[in-house]
Amino acid sequence: MNRQDAYSKLCAISKDVTVFSSIGSLLGWDQETMMPEGGTATRADQSAAMSGLVHEKATTAEIGDLLAVCEAEPFADDSVEAANVRELRHDYDRARKLPKAHVEEVARTQTIAQNEWAKARKESNFPHFAPHLEKILTLTRKSAEYYGWPESGEPYDALLEGYEPHTTSADIVAAFVPLREKLTRLIKDVQGAPKSPDGSIHTRTVPRDQQEQFVRFAAKAIGFNFDIGRLDISTHPFCSGIGPGDCRMTTRFHDDNVMDALSSTMHEAGHGIYEQNLNKEAWGTPCGESVSLGIHESQSRGWENTVGRSRAFWEWCLPHAKEIMPEAMADQTVDSVYEAQNIVKPSYIRVEADETTYNLHIMLRFEIERQMIRGEIDINDVPRIWNEKFKDYLGIEVDKDANGCLQDVHWSFGLMGYFPTYTLGNLYCAQFFEAAREAMPDMDDQFRRGEFTPLREWLTANIHAHGRRYPAGELCRRVTGKPLSADPLMRHLEGKIRPIYSI
Amino acid sequence: MNRQDAYSKLCAISKDVTVFSSIGSLLGWDQETMMPEGGTATRADQSAAMSGLVHEKATTAEIGDLLAVCEAEPFADDSVEAANVRELRHDYDRARKLPKAHVEEVARTQTIAQNEWAKARKESNFPHFAPHLEKILTLTRKSAEYYGWPESGEPYDALLEGYEPHTTSADIVAAFVPLREKLTRLIKDVQGAPKSPDGSIHTRTVPRDQQEQFVRFAAKAIGFNFDIGRLDISTHPFCSGIGPGDCRMTTRFHDDNVMDALSSTMHEAGHGIYEQNLNKEAWGTPCGESVSLGIHESQSRGWENTVGRSRAFWEWCLPHAKEIMPEAMADQTVDSVYEAQNIVKPSYIRVEADETTYNLHIMLRFEIERQMIRGEIDINDVPRIWNEKFKDYLGIEVDKDANGCLQDVHWSFGLMGYFPTYTLGNLYCAQFFEAAREAMPDMDDQFRRGEFTPLREWLTANIHAHGRRYPAGELCRRVTGKPLSADPLMRHLEGKIRPIYSI
Repeated sequence: MNRQDAYSKLCAISKDVTVFSSIGSLLGWDQETMMPEGGTATRADQSAAMSGLVHEKATTAEIGDLLAVCEAEPFADDSVEAANVRELRHDYDRARKLPKAHVEEVARTQTIAQNEWAKARKESNFPHFAPHLEKILTLTRKSAEYYGWPESGEPYDALLEGYEPHTTSADIVAAFVPLREKLTRLIKDVQGAPKSPDGSIHTRTVPRDQQEQFVRFAAKAIGFNFDIGRLDISTHPFCSGIGPGDCRMTTRFHDDNVMDALSSTMHEAGHGIYEQNLNKEAWGTPCGESVSLGIHESQSRGWENTVGRSRAFWEWCLPHAKEIMPEAMADQTVDSVYEAQNIVKPSYIRVEADETTYNLHIMLRFEIERQMIRGEIDINDVPRIWNEKFKDYLGIEVDKDANGCLQDVHWSFGLMGYFPTYTLGNLYCAQFFEAAREAMPDMDDQFRRGEFTPLREWLTANIHAHGRRYPAGELCRRVTGKPLSADPLMRHLEGKIRPIYSI
Repeated sequence: MNRQDAYSKLCAISKDVTVFSSIGSLLGWDQETMMPEGGTATRADQSAAMSGLVHEKATTAEIGDLLAVCEAEPFADDSVEAANVRELRHDYDRARKLPKAHVEEVARTQTIAQNEWAKARKESNFPHFAPHLEKILTLTRKSAEYYGWPESGEPYDALLEGYEPHTTSADIVAAFVPLREKLTRLIKDVQGAPKSPDGSIHTRTVPRDQQEQFVRFAAKAIGFNFDIGRLDISTHPFCSGIGPGDCRMTTRFHDDNVMDALSSTMHEAGHGIYEQNLNKEAWGTPCGESVSLGIHESQSRGWENTVGRSRAFWEWCLPHAKEIMPEAMADQTVDSVYEAQNIVKPSYIRVEADETTYNLHIMLRFEIERQMIRGEIDINDVPRIWNEKFKDYLGIEVDKDANGCLQDVHWSFGLMGYFPTYTLGNLYCAQFFEAAREAMPDMDDQFRRGEFTPLREWLTANIHAHGRRYPAGELCRRVTGKPLSADPLMRHLEGKIRPIYSI
């Protein structure tokens, strides 16, 4: 078989895998939004069957043979074809590394551990969860061994690779250490600040239908396309790009916090805008897929925070907010909303944390899970270590494990190596937005006029359209001219937070 | 391999096929209810991939080998195992008979024909649709040839077998001919009746939220379980039993006709109650599946018509209707609603037809499509023949083909042999309900008290729980002691309609 035929066949198989995988995504979306309560057991059968099928199709030896043909006579370095071959090789090798028996054991253990975690969190009972976490950890370390890591690396790298390909623990440490110091100082300064914004907008009752109208308005305004997307409600907001023309996000509503609904919606809309602007002709190949969790998060955090918590955004948005929610917003000014949206206040729960303290929540998790994977921590010491670090980074005492090391579902699923991508997202985001602002110095004026298309188009041209053509780090260098650094994020936060708090 | 092992393996394969097929059902439901407009192309990829996969899995030669082992040493005649083997053989042989190339050509032609039919109907332009119908007909006749039919039968039997297994054209004719005469006479008598019910309830504006509250109330009351089901909105109401614990129905709302929404909902709830009460332990085998379209329709028509248009039902329901829709229902009495729900009035459109004239719509279609399959009709004569028969059976002149032979989507999909199952459903329904009434002589009193559980349980014990254990005709004999006949339906209609019209 010649290279061109092998490549075409490879793309056809990849498309087939993608189509089935997209059906799996729909099953997941439906489960969180539409499935009746009683459908759980049937859905478990369906999801297991679909995962098994996708795994089978993604690991067929034919892919290896076709890749070998393509690699024997490599495509031009910078070509789309070369990128697709590189990424398909990456996925294929990784998928083949886990023995089926191990995958099944992980799936079984996860289901139980997730269930037991939910109970443990409810009762704030870490010892109840500990033996399950121990099992998950053992299996996850085994997964890392199956995946393997470069000689210069460590087991954690093998896991990270699954979420943020071509990024290592050392990269994370290099980015996180300077960030932590600067963030801690900023937070300390805030805590000693002479003034503090009025946060009463966060505890004000707004009718559900007004909240929904408002968040739909905002999502549409920033560029989420409802002709090829949906917005529904789920306990934990998420966004699922099913395939071209079909991207579904969810949000949540609290009676007394419309700003939470807005942030959630703009966050998920950011993910959605990425998915909706991938190259749909390339669907089914890596160049038609999002590149990494970190880059994905850079898009969601960008629209949620960099846009949605900016003064310029509120100059445009507030009149609309007042029109849709006249009672609740009557007393608000651009300054009051802007400041309320940028309150810095250490709190227990990651998903409720503000833009500044959020990253410390992540670092803490990264450090602990990395030590766990290295085998340097006794599981039973996790709460103590968590609480010590929490006090150290955020200055508050954890009152109970439900507000500490039991708060997140991730570990019960064996998702170790996942947390750092949240902060990587913030870092990429700040660096991308500095580049965008350089390219469009009048970006704030655009926001003031409610014009978000130029930004969206810049993000599409520079990021979305490439799919996985360039690994995240390389993409960052291409778009911003520099490797990833903590400086842009700190410039962004310092530049916003210090004036608000007069520090 | 011994018989028991072969049977177990067969059931495992059948379960696997069923699980994937259930995912296909979810794709279908989602497409009609949730999918964003732009998702069509992706959904076409997904549905095609899923159909292909299911067909591949359902036709694997291994099934044939396993069936042969089971058949070599047959299970006891009346056993569940024997029924499963019989039905799996039926499905396997049928699925294997169509060559893949033919299936693909049918799929392609359907997509185009369905599209062109929609245009033709919009413009009431039969000549536009004719060449596509011609192609569909040619392919459908070819399908019949691939399937084959018994020497004593005819090609139409081969198609009917796909919707109403073990039933022949001759069976249909035997049931339909006496029915047609009696229905035609009843309708003529109605047309000369001295009085006519007040139908103003069918053109009265009722707020959407009240309509929805009312139909949900009714569906729940008759036994549709919302813990394992959903109700959504779609252009054409349908019900899809995805799998155990997950059954989804849809309805439609017109601002000015709450009775249409009620009938649609009770109809689909009837389908849903069947699906929800299948033996869920048998899911994945024929004995856990509905037996035929005719039997399915007997359940939907039973709840919609026999229950929902009964006087006893309205004695219970009217006070609730008045509570939920106080303005619209204020002037209604049990008599007025009961009579309005049983108006007999020939009209063009099948899906809007009343319980009595409905069956004549079906017979007309059955006769024409049977002649088409036999090659006795020139496609271009279809409108003329349709209109002549329509005048003959229903006494009115068809004003345009959009109100005549272009009204239904079925033929554009190649669904020939499907229509008769609607009237079979009405016949089975009437016969089942006579048996139910014999077993529970106080059924009307139960309805008056809003007690529908005894009827539901009787239907479950006698029909739902068996799945495909007995073919439809045999099931009918077992439940009612008699072969299918037109008499119960006529007794039901005559007994209700003549008093209302004083004829």
